[in-house]
Amino acid sequence: MPLQPPRTVSELRELQELTGDEHGAQRVAWTETWARAREWLRGKVAELPVEHEVDEAGNQWWTLRGRSERALLLGGHVDSVPNGGWLDGCLNLLAAAEVLRRIAEEGEPPVTVRLVDWADEEGARFGRSLFGSSACSRTMADQDDLRRRVDGDGVALPDALREHGVDLDRATESGRQLESAAAYLELHIEQGPVLESLGLPLGAVIGTFGVERHLITWKGQAAHAGSTPMGERRDALAGAAKLALEIREIARRAGGGAVCTSGGIVTRPGIMTSVVETAEQLLDQRHMEAATLARMLEEARDAAARFAEEERIDVSWDRIWHIGPILFEEELVELADESVREVAGESHRLPSGPLHDAAEVARAGVPTVMLFVQSLRGLSHTKLEDTKPEHIELSVRALDRLASKALDWVAARA
Amino acid sequence: MPLQPPRTVSELRELQELTGDEHGAQRVAWTETWARAREWLRGKVAELPVEHEVDEAGNQWWTLRGRSERALLLGGHVDSVPNGGWLDGCLNLLAAAEVLRRIAEEGEPPVTVRLVDWADEEGARFGRSLFGSSACSRTMADQDDLRRRVDGDGVALPDALREHGVDLDRATESGRQLESAAAYLELHIEQGPVLESLGLPLGAVIGTFGVERHLITWKGQAAHAGSTPMGERRDALAGAAKLALEIREIARRAGGGAVCTSGGIVTRPGIMTSVVETAEQLLDQRHMEAATLARMLEEARDAAARFAEEERIDVSWDRIWHIGPILFEEELVELADESVREVAGESHRLPSGPLHDAAEVARAGVPTVMLFVQSLRGLSHTKLEDTKPEHIELSVRALDRLASKALDWVAARA
Repeated sequence: MPLQPPRTVSELRELQELTGDEHGAQRVAWTETWARAREWLRGKVAELPVEHEVDEAGNQWWTLRGRSERALLLGGHVDSVPNGGWLDGCLNLLAAAEVLRRIAEEGEPPVTVRLVDWADEEGARFGRSLFGSSACSRTMADQDDLRRRVDGDGVALPDALREHGVDLDRATESGRQLESAAAYLELHIEQGPVLESLGLPLGAVIGTFGVERHLITWKGQAAHAGSTPMGERRDALAGAAKLALEIREIARRAGGGAVCTSGGIVTRPGIMTSVVETAEQLLDQRHMEAATLARMLEEARDAAARFAEEERIDVSWDRIWHIGPILFEEELVELADESVREVAGESHRLPSGPLHDAAEVARAGVPTVMLFVQSLRGLSHTKLEDTKPEHIELSVRALDRLASKALDWVAARA
Repeated sequence: MPLQPPRTVSELRELQELTGDEHGAQRVAWTETWARAREWLRGKVAELPVEHEVDEAGNQWWTLRGRSERALLLGGHVDSVPNGGWLDGCLNLLAAAEVLRRIAEEGEPPVTVRLVDWADEEGARFGRSLFGSSACSRTMADQDDLRRRVDGDGVALPDALREHGVDLDRATESGRQLESAAAYLELHIEQGPVLESLGLPLGAVIGTFGVERHLITWKGQAAHAGSTPMGERRDALAGAAKLALEIREIARRAGGGAVCTSGGIVTRPGIMTSVVETAEQLLDQRHMEAATLARMLEEARDAAARFAEEERIDVSWDRIWHIGPILFEEELVELADESVREVAGESHRLPSGPLHDAAEVARAGVPTVMLFVQSLRGLSHTKLEDTKPEHIELSVRALDRLASKALDWVAARA
């Protein structure tokens, strides 16, 4: 049976029906709904001649043995943010399952082909994204921190994982899964407006932005809103407000698609009648060039120090997470570009602002590339996330072409 | 027995011992600790020839009958904010208890003297301050809203009140308590830095600031922090940040001790990887002149509309609460000034930025005045709140002088 791209669209709708509600997708990792989605996914590939296993980090693998042990990997993640979209993460899996069906149909492939469903890409419940892929790439270095993390209900991360058969202390043992990996392909919705603004359905991704994530704590003095003259205040919110505006200038000066985001501020005591004593501010900065990203961070730190002085408040920085820019394998990018041109006529090379499991796999030294399919209005992580069905179908075709080319590429390098 | 001001200091310490912990005072209204403090207070005046009653709003009254039914009221509140100071509210009660002892000792006073412990001045648990005094002054007009309020644990306000014998539907029946009221006196810590900066222990309060309190909701669009170009964002936090800074200019332009405070911002979804979709911002503005206060509010609204346009986001305003400026009775202010000069040599007239139960009593038409005693570093609503013991003792003496003068004043007007 040849490739059936419309099946991917209908399977995506079936999954949304099964695990979403009127607010959107609810497949948050380490929950019952997520487990149900994973089970459903197993059913979808149950008829193929593949071996199934779940590794020490909770990643789910299906292996179609080829003439060589060297493996071409196709990956995605079935977990979502709360109230998420119907495509983010699971498009990759269902498109790859379709490609796997086509390859299996043609008999033993020249190299092994594996499908991986990464555990907890979003980090929605415990604030730690790329869990399964970073364990597998062995870049996970924050186990001590993860042991202390709790969700909004006070459940500790290790306890939640244990309920799904995962022992945090052994998670990086999953790294053995990448020993035979020869290439990694991932299709994803763009989650941004670039392809739509160019009028193109598909693009080849050249790499992922470097990311700096910090928690900035401003500390002033709580004081009565009615009795404290303006000139005597030490208002923690003033520092956070100035920085929330300044990071936009920092991004503009950096250019090259730089983005800076303050995704939230928590104010304490946070009541009507008191000047803010403590403001905890999130900062996320991204750029494709390591040196520029470092300069953006330095400028934010300098600005924060200046604002702290102006406001007579204290400021401290905690690095939550960082990752350098990651360039995908040039030859695979070229193959991705070719594949897009073959199915859509025109291609566009672009970097990815969002992180993906692909970045972790690339960090582990596996030649990697991604395909992007157009997102409508650039929206993601919301139920408004959408992509035209005809573009979804085109993306399945492009992934299929790319998989064929990558199979040859891996075989040729063996 | 003559007035014993050191007793007030030791009683305040006893109360702090009984109802505070290492984080400060914990006498939040409608809690067990608050009920314990109220019981302790009853014990403190149990030996006086006074009648005790609790009214329909939960206010606690002690009445020392005089030759006339017309009554001089002395008031305070025993409730505190969580992690509050050792003086806010209870200083007034214990100093007034001391004054009541002195008056009772001297035999039947020319007019009736009453001590009142207002219920829930702070509004710490349900966000509605001046509960008991506004019920009593019959300015309480938000019962429908109050019925829907819940605390942080989801307990509804009417249920919490019922546990303390108060029926919300009947609270304003407490208004009859003010029918015989001829004057109201309240001593309070300044909760600000003015007296300390002048090197004065005491001041006479001319009135309370008018207050405008609003909840401002900024609504943008959640978007991925990595994939949404800076120019395409509709960031709700940007509006809130601009306004948090702009209100300081508004206060400066208004002059006359104007204060504007943004006490908190709640950001949603409030995560590292998303542009802020919704920012809920608290705004508190205060001034002694109604026209200036109205202009301050108008300027804030104009600025917010401008920022919403600049950021392509929406903004909406909900008035949480407002009260006009309240001028205290001029002749009582003069008597307060005299009393302060007699015990401290020098006085200073100042407005009160914070609201007090006195404002509600004055709104009900009862001639009212307040005394302020110096606060160290202007701090209040924190365990760091403090006043020198010698200043506390001076304040008891000043309240005693003022009570004597007010007794004569009320008697003369009868």
